[in-house]
This record gives sequence, structure tokens and C-alpha cells, in this order.
Amino acid sequence: MVLNKPIAVIDSGVGGLTVVQELLRQLPREEIVYFGDTARCPYGPRPQEEVRRFSYQMLDFLDQFEPKMIVIACNTATAVILEELQQINDKPVVGVIHPGVRAAIKATVLGRIGVIGTQGTIASGLYEKALKQIHPHLYVKSLACPDFVPLVEQGEYQTGKTYEIVRRSLLPLLDENLDTLVLGCTHYPILAPVIQDVMGEDVKLISSADETAREVSTLLFHKNMLSQKFERPEHLFFTSGDAEQFKRIAEAWLDMPVNVCQVSLAKQV
Amino acid sequence: MVLNKPIAVIDSGVGGLTVVQELLRQLPREEIVYFGDTARCPYGPRPQEEVRRFSYQMLDFLDQFEPKMIVIACNTATAVILEELQQINDKPVVGVIHPGVRAAIKATVLGRIGVIGTQGTIASGLYEKALKQIHPHLYVKSLACPDFVPLVEQGEYQTGKTYEIVRRSLLPLLDENLDTLVLGCTHYPILAPVIQDVMGEDVKLISSADETAREVSTLLFHKNMLSQKFERPEHLFFTSGDAEQFKRIAEAWLDMPVNVCQVSLAKQV
Repeated sequence: MVLNKPIAVIDSGVGGLTVVQELLRQLPREEIVYFGDTARCPYGPRPQEEVRRFSYQMLDFLDQFEPKMIVIACNTATAVILEELQQINDKPVVGVIHPGVRAAIKATVLGRIGVIGTQGTIASGLYEKALKQIHPHLYVKSLACPDFVPLVEQGEYQTGKTYEIVRRSLLPLLDENLDTLVLGCTHYPILAPVIQDVMGEDVKLISSADETAREVSTLLFHKNMLSQKFERPEHLFFTSGDAEQFKRIAEAWLDMPVNVCQVSLAKQV
Repeated sequence: MVLNKPIAVIDSGVGGLTVVQELLRQLPREEIVYFGDTARCPYGPRPQEEVRRFSYQMLDFLDQFEPKMIVIACNTATAVILEELQQINDKPVVGVIHPGVRAAIKATVLGRIGVIGTQGTIASGLYEKALKQIHPHLYVKSLACPDFVPLVEQGEYQTGKTYEIVRRSLLPLLDENLDTLVLGCTHYPILAPVIQDVMGEDVKLISSADETAREVSTLLFHKNMLSQKFERPEHLFFTSGDAEQFKRIAEAWLDMPVNVCQVSLAKQV
């Protein structure tokens, strides 16, 4: 039955595991097949054509599991391929940008929203476009924070160095009187305590991870595709990079044993 | 264009205006046509067949506006007709029960959720069924609070009488170690400050209104049906009861001038 098929999740690396964590929590009966393109992470600074090609390689690989739904758990890849994928696919495709947009609109009181993300995501202008499509009178301030993903990938979650880099990066946002800040990169929730501290406690942080999982739940319900399985779901994780390193991070973040297979996608860098 | 058509919202009376309030806030470009069956409110204690018939009368009336989407902004009516309406309609149909369910699952940490609603809603068992369909191991405690709707309809929002009734009604929930409480009736958000005070500040209250508007936004996006209109939207409100009284409440809750027409649906009480 199609409803008992897994949900395919792709990401440039480990960041999408924050989405998986929420999928497991909010939809404990669903099965996940995940591909993290760790070998070619980060996607943020790459040309669109490359992000597009890499994303399709992951999806083609996961196609063997006949997923019922696709989650692009990477903001950069969402900005590049979401629209195209939604057009060519019969199955539902969810990116991480629009759930954050809707949650920010729900959260803001002042109508003043900040968005932080990778260079690729911010340059795409997709957050601003999506926010204003729904709500033309919002004030939106976007900022690329290229130093954040390396901090997370290096495991520097709350060190003094992290505080310093986060504080310096977010400086342009501090006088903007924002009441909502979208963490427009799936790596950023890991830095949320530091970001919250720098922005001040009155600023509401929106994590795409929670919100994306919530929208996956909504769409599965409306398409009559919620899993009916009663046995314990078995998730599969694939990485183009080092399986041991991926396993270590995944087990720490997901707080459960995880089997990881290393898969070589292609020869391109 | 179908995407510029209005969203039809039906309710047993004024309670659904809490959903409208959030729709206007989260989707300011969308137009609303609302029907509140104030003359026959409350629906909570009525037989299912009656709730079903009354709901279809409202929908038939609103059909002249060719709505692109239907929102059943009443928990009792959602419990009775949502599934049937979703099956017979091409257009998306959103009820107020499932958005609250998904938001509660997102919010709970302990996995212990309370649900309060009218007799009809609680007797339907739909909240518990929907929660457990997604998450079989949740602890769910449901409680009918038949005295709450009359308090709201009488404008007794935060009086001493209200405190006393709310405290007495919620007594069975206080020792349940719940961390999340679903306000399973669109009237209840009006009593939220009192309910929060009685339950304690550690209990997260889930209002179907916010969550339903959020899901309407999600579905309009995924169906490519977000309004493209640039002129100011014109909303229409209809009631089967007293137009002046409805107008007074609607203008107070929505904080804007509202035009209300009284419409006689049928002779049945």
C-alpha cells in the first residue's frame, strides 16, 4: 500500500536530520529514507545547476524505495528545485522554506520578520517572495550567515568562538525591531540557544524543522496517506561521505541507534 | 480565476469568528464568506443528523459565491460531516479538529494531552481517534465542558462566575499531569486567559483557530490557490439569527467594520 511506503528526505548533509528528528517525534509511525550528501556539503555557495543535479542524484537513488512523499530538508536545494519538483511529481513534495514562512506569519505581531540562511538561500530571495505573496505589507530583512554551517559541521555548538561569530554575523539585525526570526537553514536550530541569546528573548525563532514536519503531517492527512503500519518503523540513512562520522552525529541528534550506508553518487565534486 | 474566489467558513454561531480572525491575520489577501447559524446555536447537544442537515443548508447557501475552499469552523460540525465532505468535494475541506491534533502532537513533551469540547465533539471521540492514529502511545484525557459556550455567548468572558464555572469544570483534568490542552471548540479561545489560569502556566493551550488558519494557508499553497488579488478583500457575513447582535460581536472580535445579513435558512428549529 502506498500509504505504508517511506518518506524520502534529502539534504546536503546532516542538517536535514533536524527535520528527521521532528518527523520521528510528530509522526512516529512513518518510515524515513534519508540521503545526506555530506561529501559535497555545503550546497550554500554552489551554483544552482550543481545543486539541482546533486539533488536529483539523491532522489534517483531513493526512488528504489518507492517513497510516498518527498521532503527537501535543505533550504538551498528547496530554493532551487522545489517548484520544478512539485510540477513534475504526482507525489507531494515539501520543502523547508514555505513551512517556515507560514509559521513566521502566524507568529509575528509587529509584522517585522528577519530571515537568516546560506548565501544561496538568501540570494534566491525566495523567503521574501513567499512572505510577501501571502502578506504584501510585511517588513522583511534577510541576511546570509555563511559562517554558521561550518560551525555546526565542526561540532562547535555553544563555544566562545560560536558566540563571537554569531554575535558579529547578526549585528545588522539587532536594530531592526524584529519580533520573529526565521532560521532559514536546517543546520541553524543546533545554534538556536546562541542565536536566541544574541537576538534577545523577545524575538521568536522559527525552526523550519518543526514546521516542516507539521506540514508533512497535514499533507499526509489530507491525501489520506498516513501510515497504517503497526510494526516498529525501520529507517534507512545514506550518506555520500564518511558513514562513521554521519552515524555519530545522527545518533547524537536523534538519540537512537542508526544504520548508515555510504553510497557513492558520482564522480563529480 | 478560482484562486481569487473566497473561502467559505461555516459555524454554529459566532465561535467560528476566532478562525476568521486568524484567517484575516495570516492570509490578508483572502476573501471570506461566513455563515453563522446563530438562530440554532449551540450545535453541541444536537443529534448528528440535525447538525449534518444544518451544515449542508449553510454550505448550499454559500455555494452561490463559488468558494475555492470550505472551512468547517465548528468542532461539532467537523466531527459529523468532515469525512463525508472531503469525500464528495473536489475542493479542499478543512475542519477544526485535525489542525488542533497536529499542533498538540507538535507541542507535547510528556505525551499527555487533554481535550475539552462540547458534548457532541467529545462523544464523537474524533480527537482521541485522530491523535492515536498518528501517535498510538499518547495519553489522552477528554472532557466535555457544556457550560463554556453559553458563557461566551452571554459575553461573560472573565467574570467571577466564569472563573468559578471554568475551575469546577476542569477539576477532572488537574491531577492528570497534562502538558498540553486542546481547546476543542472555537468558542473556547475567548476563555483562554481563565482556562490558562486554572490549568497552570506550564500547560500549553492549543487553539484550533490559529492552527486551522495555518493549515488553510498550507493547503492553498500546495494546491496553487493562494489569492493573487491586489485590491482590498471584501468579506461577507451571514447569520440565521439577529444581525445586529452578530455585527456587534463580530466587530469587537475582528476589530473592523463588518456587514452582516440576516438569512432565514429554513423553518426547522
